[in-house]
Amino acid sequence: HCGHTAFAMPDPVRPWKLSREGPGLFSSAASYTDSSDDETSPRDKQQKNSKEIEIAEQEMPALMALRKRAQGEKPLAGAKVVGCTHITAQTAVLMETLSALGAQCRWAACNIYSTQNEVAAALAEGGFSVFAWKGESEDDFWWCIDRCVNVEGWQPNMILDDGGDLTHWIYKKYPNMFKKIKGIVEESVTGVHRLYQLSKAGKLCVPAMNVNDSVTKQKFDNLYCCRESILDGLKRTTDVMFGGKQVVVCGYGEVSRKGCCAALKAMGSIVYVTEIDPICALQACMDGFRLVKLNEVIRQVDIVITCTGNKNVVVRENLDRMKNGCIVCNMGHSNTEIDVASLRTPELTWERVRSQVDHVIWPDGKRIVLLAEGRLLNLSCSTVPTFVLSITATTQALALIELYNAPEGRYKQDVYLLPKKMDEYVASLHLPTFDAHLTELSDEQAKYLGLNKNGPFKPNYYR
Amino acid sequence: HCGHTAFAMPDPVRPWKLSREGPGLFSSAASYTDSSDDETSPRDKQQKNSKEIEIAEQEMPALMALRKRAQGEKPLAGAKVVGCTHITAQTAVLMETLSALGAQCRWAACNIYSTQNEVAAALAEGGFSVFAWKGESEDDFWWCIDRCVNVEGWQPNMILDDGGDLTHWIYKKYPNMFKKIKGIVEESVTGVHRLYQLSKAGKLCVPAMNVNDSVTKQKFDNLYCCRESILDGLKRTTDVMFGGKQVVVCGYGEVSRKGCCAALKAMGSIVYVTEIDPICALQACMDGFRLVKLNEVIRQVDIVITCTGNKNVVVRENLDRMKNGCIVCNMGHSNTEIDVASLRTPELTWERVRSQVDHVIWPDGKRIVLLAEGRLLNLSCSTVPTFVLSITATTQALALIELYNAPEGRYKQDVYLLPKKMDEYVASLHLPTFDAHLTELSDEQAKYLGLNKNGPFKPNYYR
Amino acid sequence: HCGHTAFAMPDPVRPWKLSREGPGLFSSAASYTDSSDDETSPRDKQQKNSKEIEIAEQEMPALMALRKRAQGEKPLAGAKVVGCTHITAQTAVLMETLSALGAQCRWAACNIYSTQNEVAAALAEGGFSVFAWKGESEDDFWWCIDRCVNVEGWQPNMILDDGGDLTHWIYKKYPNMFKKIKGIVEESVTGVHRLYQLSKAGKLCVPAMNVNDSVTKQKFDNLYCCRESILDGLKRTTDVMFGGKQVVVCGYGEVSRKGCCAALKAMGSIVYVTEIDPICALQACMDGFRLVKLNEVIRQVDIVITCTGNKNVVVRENLDRMKNGCIVCNMGHSNTEIDVASLRTPELTWERVRSQVDHVIWPDGKRIVLLAEGRLLNLSCSTVPTFVLSITATTQALALIELYNAPEGRYKQDVYLLPKKMDEYVASLHLPTFDAHLTELSDEQAKYLGLNKNGPFKPNYYR
Amino acid sequence: HCGHTAFAMPDPVRPWKLSREGPGLFSSAASYTDSSDDETSPRDKQQKNSKEIEIAEQEMPALMALRKRAQGEKPLAGAKVVGCTHITAQTAVLMETLSALGAQCRWAACNIYSTQNEVAAALAEGGFSVFAWKGESEDDFWWCIDRCVNVEGWQPNMILDDGGDLTHWIYKKYPNMFKKIKGIVEESVTGVHRLYQLSKAGKLCVPAMNVNDSVTKQKFDNLYCCRESILDGLKRTTDVMFGGKQVVVCGYGEVSRKGCCAALKAMGSIVYVTEIDPICALQACMDGFRLVKLNEVIRQVDIVITCTGNKNVVVRENLDRMKNGCIVCNMGHSNTEIDVASLRTPELTWERVRSQVDHVIWPDGKRIVLLAEGRLLNLSCSTVPTFVLSITATTQALALIELYNAPEGRYKQDVYLLPKKMDEYVASLHLPTFDAHLTELSDEQAKYLGLNKNGPFKPNYYR
Repeated sequence: HCGHTAFAMPDPVRPWKLSREGPGLFSSAASYTDSSDDETSPRDKQQKNSKEIEIAEQEMPALMALRKRAQGEKPLAGAKVVGCTHITAQTAVLMETLSALGAQCRWAACNIYSTQNEVAAALAEGGFSVFAWKGESEDDFWWCIDRCVNVEGWQPNMILDDGGDLTHWIYKKYPNMFKKIKGIVEESVTGVHRLYQLSKAGKLCVPAMNVNDSVTKQKFDNLYCCRESILDGLKRTTDVMFGGKQVVVCGYGEVSRKGCCAALKAMGSIVYVTEIDPICALQACMDGFRLVKLNEVIRQVDIVITCTGNKNVVVRENLDRMKNGCIVCNMGHSNTEIDVASLRTPELTWERVRSQVDHVIWPDGKRIVLLAEGRLLNLSCSTVPTFVLSITATTQALALIELYNAPEGRYKQDVYLLPKKMDEYVASLHLPTFDAHLTELSDEQAKYLGLNKNGPFKPNYYR
Repeated sequence: HCGHTAFAMPDPVRPWKLSREGPGLFSSAASYTDSSDDETSPRDKQQKNSKEIEIAEQEMPALMALRKRAQGEKPLAGAKVVGCTHITAQTAVLMETLSALGAQCRWAACNIYSTQNEVAAALAEGGFSVFAWKGESEDDFWWCIDRCVNVEGWQPNMILDDGGDLTHWIYKKYPNMFKKIKGIVEESVTGVHRLYQLSKAGKLCVPAMNVNDSVTKQKFDNLYCCRESILDGLKRTTDVMFGGKQVVVCGYGEVSRKGCCAALKAMGSIVYVTEIDPICALQACMDGFRLVKLNEVIRQVDIVITCTGNKNVVVRENLDRMKNGCIVCNMGHSNTEIDVASLRTPELTWERVRSQVDHVIWPDGKRIVLLAEGRLLNLSCSTVPTFVLSITATTQALALIELYNAPEGRYKQDVYLLPKKMDEYVASLHLPTFDAHLTELSDEQAKYLGLNKNGPFKPNYYR
Repeated sequence: HCGHTAFAMPDPVRPWKLSREGPGLFSSAASYTDSSDDETSPRDKQQKNSKEIEIAEQEMPALMALRKRAQGEKPLAGAKVVGCTHITAQTAVLMETLSALGAQCRWAACNIYSTQNEVAAALAEGGFSVFAWKGESEDDFWWCIDRCVNVEGWQPNMILDDGGDLTHWIYKKYPNMFKKIKGIVEESVTGVHRLYQLSKAGKLCVPAMNVNDSVTKQKFDNLYCCRESILDGLKRTTDVMFGGKQVVVCGYGEVSRKGCCAALKAMGSIVYVTEIDPICALQACMDGFRLVKLNEVIRQVDIVITCTGNKNVVVRENLDRMKNGCIVCNMGHSNTEIDVASLRTPELTWERVRSQVDHVIWPDGKRIVLLAEGRLLNLSCSTVPTFVLSITATTQALALIELYNAPEGRYKQDVYLLPKKMDEYVASLHLPTFDAHLTELSDEQAKYLGLNKNGPFKPNYYR
Repeated sequence: HCGHTAFAMPDPVRPWKLSREGPGLFSSAASYTDSSDDETSPRDKQQKNSKEIEIAEQEMPALMALRKRAQGEKPLAGAKVVGCTHITAQTAVLMETLSALGAQCRWAACNIYSTQNEVAAALAEGGFSVFAWKGESEDDFWWCIDRCVNVEGWQPNMILDDGGDLTHWIYKKYPNMFKKIKGIVEESVTGVHRLYQLSKAGKLCVPAMNVNDSVTKQKFDNLYCCRESILDGLKRTTDVMFGGKQVVVCGYGEVSRKGCCAALKAMGSIVYVTEIDPICALQACMDGFRLVKLNEVIRQVDIVITCTGNKNVVVRENLDRMKNGCIVCNMGHSNTEIDVASLRTPELTWERVRSQVDHVIWPDGKRIVLLAEGRLLNLSCSTVPTFVLSITATTQALALIELYNAPEGRYKQDVYLLPKKMDEYVASLHLPTFDAHLTELSDEQAKYLGLNKNGPFKPNYYR
């Protein structure tokens, strides 16, 4: 049996199935580790990896501050957290933080490719039960999740999930476990969607915290991250020069889109926008973007970017009309914004020219440059800054603390947003990174505004 | 009695009390009309004024489109609207629109200075009952409101208010009128606040529509308007060059603030921000502004701008430390953000150097340049673009239509936001101004998104 | 005779010819002085005026620093400067500076409207010989210039001119005076052009310094000034909202144009550019502007701005095709960029709607909004910031010092640019305004770069 | 002998010396080709490579247009061009263009790492004499150059050089060859510097064209390229998030620097600038950057970027004071801006964490992130867009045409800039890429401006 024993590395019979995809979601460290695989001894790797975690610690000062502030109280004493997320240096810092706050943790990976093996190994060596490796098969994947949960003499009372697979597994296999579970913290859009469906169906049997929609996370994931990753993703895949390029961005509904448009405008691109919602359309106009229908500009643009959350926004008819060399990519929510399936026809030739980059070639020689096969560019072809991962991890930790310590009855069997005050707390833990100095309300001002001096400062619905 | 007879010009015994303040809220037309007062014959004025309304019509295509679209149905047939707003060319276009849609109107001014006399005269000549002139006394003001309401043989069934004074007057003097009133449309922050208080106290006896917080209006009033008016207001009052100036902006909580900061940054100013809310603070950091406490930079900045909604954000102690020539102004909500009262002390000399501009002089000769005596800069020292007035007026018209036509029971005795769909309709009426072309959802997409093809496209709480 | 006696105020027989134009070139002080004409006693005006000079001194720290640094040496001892410039508080600070450095000064105005009478009076009271008043006739103008020059017992040895009228007058009437004149400092484009023509014709008989083309002045007049004055000029005249407006800017050849385009882009306008030079055209593309021919966009734009230095850039044919309400203005060099003459035809009606704003009305009712009758918008409808005036005045002072003290033979009978080093000195005198800290070269670095540690740091031709 | 025979692939005895540096100067294609080395058959490579050239042709429409326009005239008929540049797909397009215009070509590589072997092979197969492969030794390098020049029965009459090594070799080994050589076209800063030294020393025996300083190339290399490559270089090496980062940029003297500062500001960084030249310093202020001495901010900044052209701008003392994690890089001219040598001391540990990225670790654990060991970031860690390569290649082709066809006596034994008109021609060939439409001068306008309708439109010294 493996109880608390480390079990992070694959058994010998499980061959390594290294992704040929290059950088995945949590790419940076992984990608350079990979490139030197053949030259580094296992011992060096181990050392290197501890260093990765050490460096990640320096880049996640908010979690370190949380450890310091909450360590005395051990707010997670007695918590038994079962987690299913990407297994990276940043996750390691989170797990160590949860542990420092009193929790016991067992962990699996939420993605078959994203595990940093050295991190998993280092965690195992440090006494954590981690079941994950890079390049799991579908069977491996569920086996790992099961090993996390299904262990004699230990039963989880908190779930930290990213995608809902762990939650789903428990629902399906061990529904009785929910009797002891105090709550679920869910990170992803998909997972949150599943939870709302469970709730609607009256099947959600514990409180769940939707941390994907916390204000801080949203702002960073959408606006600030996309502002940089649209440029980075396009540059890494195509080396395109932005100056003077004509770009059409489909959708202007979320801040993320404003991130894209503003960044490209700042780099000297001429940006057109399409929209279905007149309010967002009017904003695009006032922000200095020509609002058009896709077909008005499709023949002249150099780059097409979808970010609508909608499906079939760019269809074969549009693709047929694009000019030679046009770059097509997706920064939206789903993978169906570009109708990629329509390009899988005999008369078109696909040519993989670089990782994540396909040339689709028309009979007349016209080439369309399709990125990430229409999947999300920012996840596939760019990296997620540590700062954003830090916000995510801190939010997850606080959500666990809140659910675990909430007095009976505060949370029902429903899906909740992180309380505004904790959201604000996450933000405040990140201010020192910028040497930023917050102003405090005077008593008189707090009274005038009808606020508590320590927040929350805004209503819960405020974005 | 005066029934439907025009009564717009002051009686002879009421002397003209022209504001020495220069441009008031609705300034543009007013200001140049004034400057030629001594040179223009009354006949010319009359003609000029019709022209003002005519020009305003060209600049408010949304209302003109509404007239065209809704004229057949006369959705306000039978409506008797009593209104209390600024009386300007733009209001004239609104009143004529309401009339075209079937309503009868009686109107008073919501501000003693802002009436454009020629507009009032032209409306009167056109058969509207307008009770207002520029430079009313306090008594005049209430007399006018009363004349609007208190008329034999005519009883209002709709209220359009801007500030709540008209509503208050009816509550106080003619509470029985509410029996026939179908609803109140309120424009201003103050008026909306009063309505919420009435509602809380259980005293609101008809449905009320808060149009101040409609999405379209908010975005324009805050972000897009302030982006331009901060520059305009500072330039017109002080001729300051923005390039290289150090500016501290207090508050980063609303889009309006982002308007200020972004505009000044674009003009080459170095902008510091103060904040109390860590989430907004983090956003200021990510947008490239140093987050400071006011006292860290107060000695070095050239311009101090408040936009917090809070009180005593800039106090005497801060003012004492500012450097010579520092400009101080308020773009927030209240007039108490700068503690102007603290400057009314014997050792300081006040010198009015221009309309809306005071030099406050310290004993050592240091001068602080105080704008609009701490009142809102954008209202006092800049103009409100016709486009924004058009959005406001269209929103008011649609709110009246909605309340007047809503089936029994849709609205209770409470304060409501404009339904999302009507908000979107306001926006769509303004898109042709920008030659903007909206994309339509396909049936398949609408189904995928779970939306009606004609909207609403976002949940009501979406901002 | 009036020798050094003050003679600043007009004689009684010279009626006041106040401009109805509103703010002229040096408007700010003038405009608010005027508005209170009827309310302020002469004594108050006098006091107010000294205060204007006092305030100007605070805003021109570079000249004050120059006084301090150069006062011991009196580098202008013995200099007899005859000047012909705008007579404003800023000029007063310049004259007092020249005086402090040892010079004697006699002054006339270079423009019949721009004199601030109170400044002239204060200068006269202070012992300066100033011949100027606001609203001179053509005859007055030349009479004043003559009185400056033609005085018994005093002969100028330096000329400071702005426009070349003073220089021209001496050439025409007192050519012998040039025997004693050490040099001419000329400020304006026109004046410099005249000097180059004299030089080409071999008729320039003293060295002349072209201060108009000094690097510092050029950058500020073109880029930094225009960036702000395009917005200010448009706003003050038309109250137009920039967001979402389509604008075509003719010409992308000089930094000033980049100022215009960048400022409008930052405010949310959609900017198109026309160009004749492919290099500038390519830059417009890379900066994110669509490069078009005027007729491609003329029907759709809301604003047309010329800045080419060329003539007939916007002609009647273009004007005929513009849409209703289109604003047309000129930010270029000449007054012929817009063919305004072509609009003076019987079928078009002109209507002056505000100072500097004409509506030109087509038979079908279409209105074109023409600003400043096609003259330079930035000079006619905006203000020149004191900071720019400070740079100009400091440059003039240093040019006088250079020419007056240059060793025999350094300057021939030709037109010169200000030596790079003095240009750099002007800049350095203005850095303290921004609390800017210059880095000094180490000996080793200076040697590596082949530079003197104190400059000049760039070759003379560097822009 | 090998005459026109292909000789592009290394002989068997020359081992492959693949760079471990990852992307070199012309990286993009090379880098992904490499990564799949083990999977692609030689035949596929060959095909892939022709495709690379084909794709490059599509991205260099200016050269293709030149081919079309000049092909009839064969302006290089009889030209025997010996070239020494990077050997890439883009160079192949240039060589094929020169050939189409009538020239014979022999080519060597100017860099031992940058050759794309497949391109060299394809050129050889196409009949070009190319002597180059990736990973040459020093000896190989000179051997290749010699093979280019030293061939029986063929003598070059034009030189196209990038770095001056080819020119140097001929000077040293075959000085007599210059008798038949009509001119040298030199691309690089270093090569141009060498030519000016030869010229100064009176040893330049043929005309030389400095294409490095042509206006079009300068603007693109400096401003437009750096604007993008600063972001790209930092992102690819460090994955840093720009928002909220404090950055100090040393030097504000050239447009390139403005590229850096503007790009970072647009991404939400807070940028400080250091300068030695007061004119540039004043511009930094007006552009909205705080001007500081390095030591004022060195403790607080997250990123330090040098772009001065100076040496020892960042020294050990500065490095000692930086905070943990500070990123240090160079975007300037020389490799000595950062005193990297001072970091090679025993108490500091160097750790290579990724290609081009070193952690330098202080005894207390502080890490500085040094990029490209202080060499140019944009060359080492970013890619050069094809568009910029297209401008360079077109400029080279036109310079060859100009020198080869210039009438006797137009060019002496000196270094020349490309004539303005040809520079403008290069720009005009690139406008169709942006669908940009140039305006033509009317006869009347050309006369007014004193210009030829076809240019040149600006004086030669205009930048």
